[in-house]
Amino acid sequence: MTTKRRILTGDRPTGKLHLGHYVGSLQYRLAFQEEYECFFIIADLHMLTTKPTKEDVAQIGQNARDIVLDHLAIGIDPQKTSFYLQSAVHEIYEMHLILSGMVTVERLQQLPTIKDMAAAAGMEQMPYNLLGYPVLQAADILMPRAHLVPVGKDNESHIEISRQIARRFNNAYADVFPLPDAYIVGGTLVGTDGQAKMSKSLGNAILLSDDSASVRKSVMSMYTDPNRIRADIPGTVEGNPVFSYHDTFNPDKAEVEDLKERYREGAVGDVEVKTKLYNALEAFLEPIRERRAFYAEQTGYTDQLIYEGTQRAQEEARQTLIEMKKAMGLTGVWNRIRRANERRQKRLAKA
Amino acid sequence: MTTKRRILTGDRPTGKLHLGHYVGSLQYRLAFQEEYECFFIIADLHMLTTKPTKEDVAQIGQNARDIVLDHLAIGIDPQKTSFYLQSAVHEIYEMHLILSGMVTVERLQQLPTIKDMAAAAGMEQMPYNLLGYPVLQAADILMPRAHLVPVGKDNESHIEISRQIARRFNNAYADVFPLPDAYIVGGTLVGTDGQAKMSKSLGNAILLSDDSASVRKSVMSMYTDPNRIRADIPGTVEGNPVFSYHDTFNPDKAEVEDLKERYREGAVGDVEVKTKLYNALEAFLEPIRERRAFYAEQTGYTDQLIYEGTQRAQEEARQTLIEMKKAMGLTGVWNRIRRANERRQKRLAKA
Repeated sequence: MTTKRRILTGDRPTGKLHLGHYVGSLQYRLAFQEEYECFFIIADLHMLTTKPTKEDVAQIGQNARDIVLDHLAIGIDPQKTSFYLQSAVHEIYEMHLILSGMVTVERLQQLPTIKDMAAAAGMEQMPYNLLGYPVLQAADILMPRAHLVPVGKDNESHIEISRQIARRFNNAYADVFPLPDAYIVGGTLVGTDGQAKMSKSLGNAILLSDDSASVRKSVMSMYTDPNRIRADIPGTVEGNPVFSYHDTFNPDKAEVEDLKERYREGAVGDVEVKTKLYNALEAFLEPIRERRAFYAEQTGYTDQLIYEGTQRAQEEARQTLIEMKKAMGLTGVWNRIRRANERRQKRLAKA
Repeated sequence: MTTKRRILTGDRPTGKLHLGHYVGSLQYRLAFQEEYECFFIIADLHMLTTKPTKEDVAQIGQNARDIVLDHLAIGIDPQKTSFYLQSAVHEIYEMHLILSGMVTVERLQQLPTIKDMAAAAGMEQMPYNLLGYPVLQAADILMPRAHLVPVGKDNESHIEISRQIARRFNNAYADVFPLPDAYIVGGTLVGTDGQAKMSKSLGNAILLSDDSASVRKSVMSMYTDPNRIRADIPGTVEGNPVFSYHDTFNPDKAEVEDLKERYREGAVGDVEVKTKLYNALEAFLEPIRERRAFYAEQTGYTDQLIYEGTQRAQEEARQTLIEMKKAMGLTGVWNRIRRANERRQKRLAKA
């Protein structure tokens, strides 16, 4: 048995990951795996709250494989992380129902994040399961009895609800759960079109799995200072996506400073600035692509990882649910009925 | 396979049943069992919404046995009814979570019944699971794909939500569920103290399992017309609990009419009215007591029924959940991962 502390992290299986994901969360996962045992949930039940159609469900499998591959590609070590498919762990459904009595509707309705999700999904009314999103998250987090959950600032309140649910359970029955801490991660990356957030659905993303030609195309057509219609016009660096990307992905700080200075003076062309960004991104992405190709050619490897990770999660979930039900006394109810029936059958057999 | 249509009925395991239950629902269950295959849920997960403490949970087992015994005692045939413990059927938890996306918070908040339950339980805020009570009921009803659900008038709206959830599921994925119909049952019995409703917690109930001495005591101390301080004072029959009970339980209508006439004229003593009610109740309760004693002395028999009924329900639930997940495409997600891993393991073994 490992004595490492545990982390719960994961994604909804909605598609391939991009540079924005790297900046906002993936880089932290890389750091955390050295210290923590990582449970990585492929949260398809969460996906169903806003993407419930047959067509959405049909994407889950491939998206799950892509997510795992993206994580292997950036350097996540499958020895340190269990990838598991949420919908295949039946104890999560049970935990969800049991824990759903430990938070009030009012408390959930205070969360602006939930309303934002409904609005983003074009929902005029709030589905019951979407309001309960943080309850299912609590089940996810408490299932492996995670100590730490890396989340963006705007999701901190969800972890607070998990803490509250854990505390209420412990107080009502027995001390089953450690109180999970939120670890605030983040930083967002603007889209290649200058919009506030990179997003595949907005078409302004550079995927971790994009090939060189796609990356070049994305970079060369990136939004920059719109007033700079010629190379000799002084430009603005602040809030300029091309320079944001340079700041994030170009390790040659001297080069970046030089480009900024010349850009401000109108002494550099966009092509040079963008080509140097392209080179920096390629230097960042090339090892990722190599690892991705290495794992991708091992047919069925991501399936194996998800299969084994799910088995690992199922075993963990089984133990947690048993402890929960024991603490509540629910195990005893069924066991006594079962044993009383066994005794009766024995008596009947003798008679 | 039976071709009978199915009914879903049941109780929360909160205690022994009384005459009010008989009037409001048990008599209908007796009639329905001739025509329908009956699934009888011992709804302990529902009980947890308002009675979640360890002490409450500790009562579930004995209460479940008492409920089954009460039903056998009134003449429910265990060949026609499967009694099952809700919390032991894990598919119900899964169905609950999946179906919880098919109804909105707004829709649930329109139900006055839910607010009444929260108020009755002394809750100042609405727990998330209590708001979702009708969602869990939908899972209960759709699990055996019940056609008919006998409910009191005030719960008709809950069945309407089950219908809506079934309809939405069928439309979104595939035609898995028959739309359940509500069958309105009811009639309430006033308490022995004259309060609107008989209830064990109000101490105004006559239990189906009460012995003759208890019944006599309850009847003789029943609330009647408070203005009739002497037998020769004319009394009011309407709304008088003693006469309500006569109307319900005394099959000798001529006797009842005679008593009412003399009561109105101030020509009968309370003792005679109550003694005749006691006799009528005893005639009603005695066969119930006999059957109860017959079954009670077969040690473990109620446990056996709950055990076997739960196994029956589990098998039914398994099939329903498989069809649900197939319709959604969720089964395929996991199966493809599992099979891809199997193929990989075979390849690795060969290599």
